[in-house]
Amino acid sequence: MADFILTFSCPNRPGIVAAVATSLVSSGYNILEAQQFDDAETGHFFMRVLFNPVLEGADIEDFREKLAEIGERFEMELTLRDRSVKPKVMLLVSKFDHCLADLLYRWRIGELPMEITAIVSNHPREALQLPELDEVPFHHLPVTAATKPEQEAKLWDLIEETETEFVVLARYMQVLSDELSTKLAGRCINIHHSFLPGFKGAKPYHQAHERGVKLIGATAHFVTPDLDEGPIIEQDVERISHRHTPADLIAKGRDIERRVLARALHYVLDDRVIISGRKTVVFYD
Amino acid sequence: MADFILTFSCPNRPGIVAAVATSLVSSGYNILEAQQFDDAETGHFFMRVLFNPVLEGADIEDFREKLAEIGERFEMELTLRDRSVKPKVMLLVSKFDHCLADLLYRWRIGELPMEITAIVSNHPREALQLPELDEVPFHHLPVTAATKPEQEAKLWDLIEETETEFVVLARYMQVLSDELSTKLAGRCINIHHSFLPGFKGAKPYHQAHERGVKLIGATAHFVTPDLDEGPIIEQDVERISHRHTPADLIAKGRDIERRVLARALHYVLDDRVIISGRKTVVFYD
Amino acid sequence: MADFILTFSCPNRPGIVAAVATSLVSSGYNILEAQQFDDAETGHFFMRVLFNPVLEGADIEDFREKLAEIGERFEMELTLRDRSVKPKVMLLVSKFDHCLADLLYRWRIGELPMEITAIVSNHPREALQLPELDEVPFHHLPVTAATKPEQEAKLWDLIEETETEFVVLARYMQVLSDELSTKLAGRCINIHHSFLPGFKGAKPYHQAHERGVKLIGATAHFVTPDLDEGPIIEQDVERISHRHTPADLIAKGRDIERRVLARALHYVLDDRVIISGRKTVVFYD
Amino acid sequence: MADFILTFSCPNRPGIVAAVATSLVSSGYNILEAQQFDDAETGHFFMRVLFNPVLEGADIEDFREKLAEIGERFEMELTLRDRSVKPKVMLLVSKFDHCLADLLYRWRIGELPMEITAIVSNHPREALQLPELDEVPFHHLPVTAATKPEQEAKLWDLIEETETEFVVLARYMQVLSDELSTKLAGRCINIHHSFLPGFKGAKPYHQAHERGVKLIGATAHFVTPDLDEGPIIEQDVERISHRHTPADLIAKGRDIERRVLARALHYVLDDRVIISGRKTVVFYD
Repeated sequence: MADFILTFSCPNRPGIVAAVATSLVSSGYNILEAQQFDDAETGHFFMRVLFNPVLEGADIEDFREKLAEIGERFEMELTLRDRSVKPKVMLLVSKFDHCLADLLYRWRIGELPMEITAIVSNHPREALQLPELDEVPFHHLPVTAATKPEQEAKLWDLIEETETEFVVLARYMQVLSDELSTKLAGRCINIHHSFLPGFKGAKPYHQAHERGVKLIGATAHFVTPDLDEGPIIEQDVERISHRHTPADLIAKGRDIERRVLARALHYVLDDRVIISGRKTVVFYD
Repeated sequence: MADFILTFSCPNRPGIVAAVATSLVSSGYNILEAQQFDDAETGHFFMRVLFNPVLEGADIEDFREKLAEIGERFEMELTLRDRSVKPKVMLLVSKFDHCLADLLYRWRIGELPMEITAIVSNHPREALQLPELDEVPFHHLPVTAATKPEQEAKLWDLIEETETEFVVLARYMQVLSDELSTKLAGRCINIHHSFLPGFKGAKPYHQAHERGVKLIGATAHFVTPDLDEGPIIEQDVERISHRHTPADLIAKGRDIERRVLARALHYVLDDRVIISGRKTVVFYD
Repeated sequence: MADFILTFSCPNRPGIVAAVATSLVSSGYNILEAQQFDDAETGHFFMRVLFNPVLEGADIEDFREKLAEIGERFEMELTLRDRSVKPKVMLLVSKFDHCLADLLYRWRIGELPMEITAIVSNHPREALQLPELDEVPFHHLPVTAATKPEQEAKLWDLIEETETEFVVLARYMQVLSDELSTKLAGRCINIHHSFLPGFKGAKPYHQAHERGVKLIGATAHFVTPDLDEGPIIEQDVERISHRHTPADLIAKGRDIERRVLARALHYVLDDRVIISGRKTVVFYD
Repeated sequence: MADFILTFSCPNRPGIVAAVATSLVSSGYNILEAQQFDDAETGHFFMRVLFNPVLEGADIEDFREKLAEIGERFEMELTLRDRSVKPKVMLLVSKFDHCLADLLYRWRIGELPMEITAIVSNHPREALQLPELDEVPFHHLPVTAATKPEQEAKLWDLIEETETEFVVLARYMQVLSDELSTKLAGRCINIHHSFLPGFKGAKPYHQAHERGVKLIGATAHFVTPDLDEGPIIEQDVERISHRHTPADLIAKGRDIERRVLARALHYVLDDRVIISGRKTVVFYD
């Protein structure tokens, strides 16, 4: 039997949990897992509820109706997802394919439950180190400063045609235009190869080497028009020393980048991330 | 206005969250924070709810009555704590006082909200490196194999007289008798200087050195009659290398021990730990 | 111009570093990097020296002669490797291919400088999730209790024919016989899916779940006839919680296993590991 | 018998290690531990050598003479320290005394081998949470914008009178003047409560909360006239979540700060840190 995930945020008021929990029971569902967060600072309330049917007569349409009413009453922004339907994800890459290779492996063994709509690169297929991938369509969309609007238009068409829900920039080394960033608000995840907000912009590992830091990191965040400033989903670091050259940092960074991006995507696919202004609420498993 | 923490575990059945949430609302309270866990393996449900009054007429006795009924209906084991009343804690130590010093510092600056009923050692006060502590009574309860029953009787009297709720073995190097362990079930926390279940028993850092492991750790657990086998509350590790002698491991271990014990005690004092058979459910902050 | 790596261990005596350093200078070489370790416990001295020619007339044969004399004088066990020649490595696997996929990716992008002589599995090629690998020969060597001696004989022949120097058990779920373990002493690396010495033997993630530990780990070690007791090369851990089922631990474990094995193999390929009894000296970069 | 530590840096040239090692042998000393680093980028060579006498006739003055000649020949900046003489250290603090308390505890149990010349604060003794410290003189040096030059003059006098070698800013919340920073170049260690270069300046935990990072950190660095830009000695981080308020971050930060500062001071006291421009070489144990 199918499981469902409900997530929502709304202004905090008494009775939210009681209203949701009571509706679920009366529609024949049982809460398997729930996490919530009251943000005392903003007065906002965030919740993620995983539930499944307990009764023969469990009726998701019945619950949807009740939820619509509750949602309106409490001014919720909400999503309700049938967990048996895999989210559609498009993967963008340039030349460095360590994150892409990692995501594909995790997808192949069932660790990341998603449907990959396409792999898109601004470089031709031969630029990737990856062995053949018959299962996933590959699109080469080259881009120059002059052709950027045109290329992004093609990309957008592809996103719409394939009904892509999430776009992952798996070391796609092009800055999205403000327009495209805005269209993809809350649906586009980037991996930045530094521990933001340190070392924004280009060549972060060279910056880190130059500064002599003792840890390097990577940051997965939602893309916004404000470069490297989008809501952070996940970060991690590793210890380095004076012995490491920029090339060593790049190699070490590959490991950090791929695990940070994989974790961030896992959280997103599992409806664990709710955006809250320029920050995120992440309900960890 | 005071906050309350409710924790409980019970067999999983539909309607638990709805029942608790609805009662809270009707008694004039609002849920600030809630975490729950369905253990699919055992069919048990665990929950921690932090709530505070929203209405003038909020009435904790009214809620207690409703809770008594709900508790009976769902066969809950539950605790309800007024957060403004600090738990009473006794600290036991032998000669190594790094954990004790750390707990006392955290207590002094308000990081660990507890009332320390006593410091008890099997060694005289002079054995400790600590500067004077006028605020906390110190008891020297020496012990030998022959006098153990007698010494533990005195210790138990002291626990009862001072209404101590939790006993912390902060590198107290005496094994408690089965009898005392049983009396203190779920209320006595020990710090073991290894990453259990590796290196049980005596001289774990020497064992770790001998085996050539690359990480050493520490484990905070509830004390049970079964030595080094009680439910684990918290663990952590640090990286070591071939260069480290057993003495180096002991020094490094001090840092791990004190942060693991401090975290475990924080979780316990904040009602974040529920015992589940020989394991724990810890609702992290 | 080529670099060389010298590693050795010997009983500690005054003058070792001076003798090696002076010989290198007089043969026209410069020390780029050196690490050493005096084991006060065993009285043994360990050293790794990376050097390259500074003079036109640098002569490695000249140095080899001097080294032979020094080696005899100080009773050294030594290796001298021309860094431009890649070590030959055989990869063994059963059904779980996450470590194999990871090693292959790192090899493909040049992160692990080795020549892969073969991939060997006790299961047919179709059991692997990996896409085609035209570049590396695959051998299916099925095994049963009855055919084990025969299968190991074939494996050994393959190791000898291909002049394989290191054998990596990348989740190869067969215990090697004492005989084969002994033949491969110091050349065969296994990844064990637990933080040894905790949870030896089968199903370590189930054991970890059962015990309720708060961290799980993986261990890369040299294979010896004494199961799960060989010298440890590298270990790492990750934090888990009560929420994680054994299946979750297995998934999390994949990440730990693959990075621990990749690091261990990197250290071995870069001549950073010297065995010292049942332990290792690892000169980290 | 006493141990000695030699550290030096110089332009890289063939024969450095041979020259040092040969001199040590001929003066009757044996190398116990040595670490070196060739910085290919700058062409500089760094080395730390720990040695002790092996012969009756070992003569440190004899070695000093040889070293003077070698130092001149290779243009070394060098230090030679008799390990039995403890470095003199002054501790500066303002109101938050968690780092101070931690350093004092480690000093008391012998973990940090130093002679504390004084504790200096811009606040009176009563502002500290610490229990009495009869062993260490306390100086109250209040400061305002107007009296800063005068206060720093008193501080400098105290440093000179007590022959203080290292000054530790253990959450001393005053910015040192350019003049004093320059006088103390390479001898003054600060703990900054952020993972530099992120969140420079004031209220870093509030900045981190504002930005929504998933890890917070602390940085120990040498003080230079360029605020928060001095050579980094040590850094560490801890994971946080959306649940943590700025007050929680400050509490978590205390743990990071004190262990980062303690480690940095340990490295400095053990002659493991060599400054290299705006970076450090740290030879870890």
